[in-house]
Amino acid sequence: MIRGKVTGRVWSSKHIETLPNGAMLEVDIEGSKIVAFDPLGCAEGEEVLITQGSVAAAFFTKHKAPIDALIIGSIDET
Amino acid sequence: MIRGKVTGRVWSSKHIETLPNGAMLEVDIEGSKIVAFDPLGCAEGEEVLITQGSVAAAFFTKHKAPIDALIIGSIDET
Amino acid sequence: MIRGKVTGRVWSSKHIETLPNGAMLEVDIEGSKIVAFDPLGCAEGEEVLITQGSVAAAFFTKHKAPIDALIIGSIDET
Amino acid sequence: MIRGKVTGRVWSSKHIETLPNGAMLEVDIEGSKIVAFDPLGCAEGEEVLITQGSVAAAFFTKHKAPIDALIIGSIDET
Amino acid sequence: MIRGKVTGRVWSSKHIETLPNGAMLEVDIEGSKIVAFDPLGCAEGEEVLITQGSVAAAFFTKHKAPIDALIIGSIDET
Repeated sequence: MIRGKVTGRVWSSKHIETLPNGAMLEVDIEGSKIVAFDPLGCAEGEEVLITQGSVAAAFFTKHKAPIDALIIGSIDET
Repeated sequence: MIRGKVTGRVWSSKHIETLPNGAMLEVDIEGSKIVAFDPLGCAEGEEVLITQGSVAAAFFTKHKAPIDALIIGSIDET
Repeated sequence: MIRGKVTGRVWSSKHIETLPNGAMLEVDIEGSKIVAFDPLGCAEGEEVLITQGSVAAAFFTKHKAPIDALIIGSIDET
Repeated sequence: MIRGKVTGRVWSSKHIETLPNGAMLEVDIEGSKIVAFDPLGCAEGEEVLITQGSVAAAFFTKHKAPIDALIIGSIDET
Repeated sequence: MIRGKVTGRVWSSKHIETLPNGAMLEVDIEGSKIVAFDPLGCAEGEEVLITQGSVAAAFFTKHKAPIDALIIGSIDET
């Protein structure tokens, strides 16, 4: 997994039909940006843990989702 | 997912048979270029969201397609 | 596989339900950081071998786990 | 997909049994080199489109092939 | 695939049970290091071809192996 910090949210009105409803968050990973699906309700500035690839898509069990990056946890502040 | 800006279109007359009909767009991702299949009719300059790997190929359900990068949405201007 | 050195542990109280119980270790890979699931009880400073992607998730056979990085061995000192 | 320019061919007399017969071409991708299986008969200097990972391996339907990079098209000159 | 030069061997006495018996070689890929399973008996200094990800794991047909990098051939000197 990779860890990163949530920096914003992305909206897409024009999208393919299989895109699941829910937040798509922009996350900064050591200076690069990726966009991850967020099932946890994370906020801007939160440190999160992200899984990628087919492992991320496998989270969606009722329908096939085109998601290759998923927030799996929020990292505890220490 | 990764976000990028559409910079052009790629044409390939000589290709393997399983390549699906449709637009192959060149997208700039933080300075690198990738080529993604576009089922949405995006235009040059549009900001798009791209999913990669086997998750992209899974979009094609009628036949197996050799596509490892798929535009899943156009990002709303804010 | 990639090799790296364990640099710490990550805790996540707020996480998706399918995250398996067990240690999530932060590992330095040639200057970049990733987080890997550790089934071996590795310690900080230990050199480890990591497998990634769906190959890492396939380690979990009883339930589907959102793990895309797995420590598969500790590297012998030579 | 990624695009690149064919720079040469790689020969391997000592290989695993499941390696398919056919050309393995060296392709320059923005300064990095990868080696891709070529089912199209591309020549040195040709600009090609490459798909990667399990999507590339899925091209081989009669037997399982250890191919994670496949040339899927030659890019038209414009 | 990627090509690289074998630079050494990695030993791991403490490992998960599903790690297959056989050589794990350290390979230099354009200045980065990866560790790949070697079914061919390659030697230090040899130029090899490596496949990655689930395509590498699919080489193991009798049992599921946590291997995401596999040497599939030794490159002929020219």
